[in-house]
Amino acid sequence: MLRFVTGNEGKVREAREYLPEPVERVDYDYTEVQSDSLTEIAAAGARESYEAIGDPVFVDDAGLFVEGLGGFPGPYSAYVEETLGVERVWRLAEGECDEPRRASFRAVVAFCAGADVETFDGSVRGRLVAPRGEGGFGYDPIFEHTGRTLAEMSTKEKNAISHRGRALAAFGDWLAER
Amino acid sequence: MLRFVTGNEGKVREAREYLPEPVERVDYDYTEVQSDSLTEIAAAGARESYEAIGDPVFVDDAGLFVEGLGGFPGPYSAYVEETLGVERVWRLAEGECDEPRRASFRAVVAFCAGADVETFDGSVRGRLVAPRGEGGFGYDPIFEHTGRTLAEMSTKEKNAISHRGRALAAFGDWLAER
Repeated sequence: MLRFVTGNEGKVREAREYLPEPVERVDYDYTEVQSDSLTEIAAAGARESYEAIGDPVFVDDAGLFVEGLGGFPGPYSAYVEETLGVERVWRLAEGECDEPRRASFRAVVAFCAGADVETFDGSVRGRLVAPRGEGGFGYDPIFEHTGRTLAEMSTKEKNAISHRGRALAAFGDWLAER
Repeated sequence: MLRFVTGNEGKVREAREYLPEPVERVDYDYTEVQSDSLTEIAAAGARESYEAIGDPVFVDDAGLFVEGLGGFPGPYSAYVEETLGVERVWRLAEGECDEPRRASFRAVVAFCAGADVETFDGSVRGRLVAPRGEGGFGYDPIFEHTGRTLAEMSTKEKNAISHRGRALAAFGDWLAER
């Protein structure tokens, strides 16, 4: 039994598709540290959660990294979405970044079952574009991958290129082999 | 004896001007938590530092809050300065915010000498403008207060309206009266 520390039931369903063991959601409000490294933020969260809960746990962290903006908004993507908003991030990139305005969604899964923390990365590369599409959430409408924005894809298509899915798949491989 | 947990000797000198007790700098790399509240970040840092060091300690946290950008960059001002840069924050505000593009510098000092944490706020209001002036650092060239940017002021003039100084002054009053 693995415990996924998250407030998001949808993430738990996604995890179950990739992991070879049962997954249960745990609500625990771990501290998110400030860092420019998703790995550092997730690892600290997994360690704290393990110490509080006592069972093997994993957490995830993710963000949008815009190449021409020094990786902004990166680990603070949620905060920037809430304050600036996605439209303004697009206009900022439009004004400041040369075509093709490369960006990547990155995710890290961190697993702790004792002294050590194992981390697994996933990413998907794309480019920022003017908002298009009705689906998805967050930055999906401005992130284009192979010609369509994530908001123009079905959930199934989006999951097939999910940065979180890729990190979960790496975690699943590791679990299966240990 | 008060211990100021900071890597910045200049801040210690500033603190000595406001506080009625001797101040010594301590190097301790406390965890900065993610939060939209400077108070929460500073309070967590003061508590952790007190637990590690064992003597009465204080820390500070500060940021630039742009009204028309939902408070962005706020607690993540240093990260945004490193990734986007100050010029781009100005261009973002120029394009997205109506005149007079109000903003404030805010600082919080958090003091811990036992179970409780006391926090003290300071702020200075102004407006964002195109970069002017050679002095100061960080966002100083784009923050105008009563007709001049902070980068156009002498250190003495700047200190007289310092958000950190105001927070330190409130802390000093509290120390003198307890």
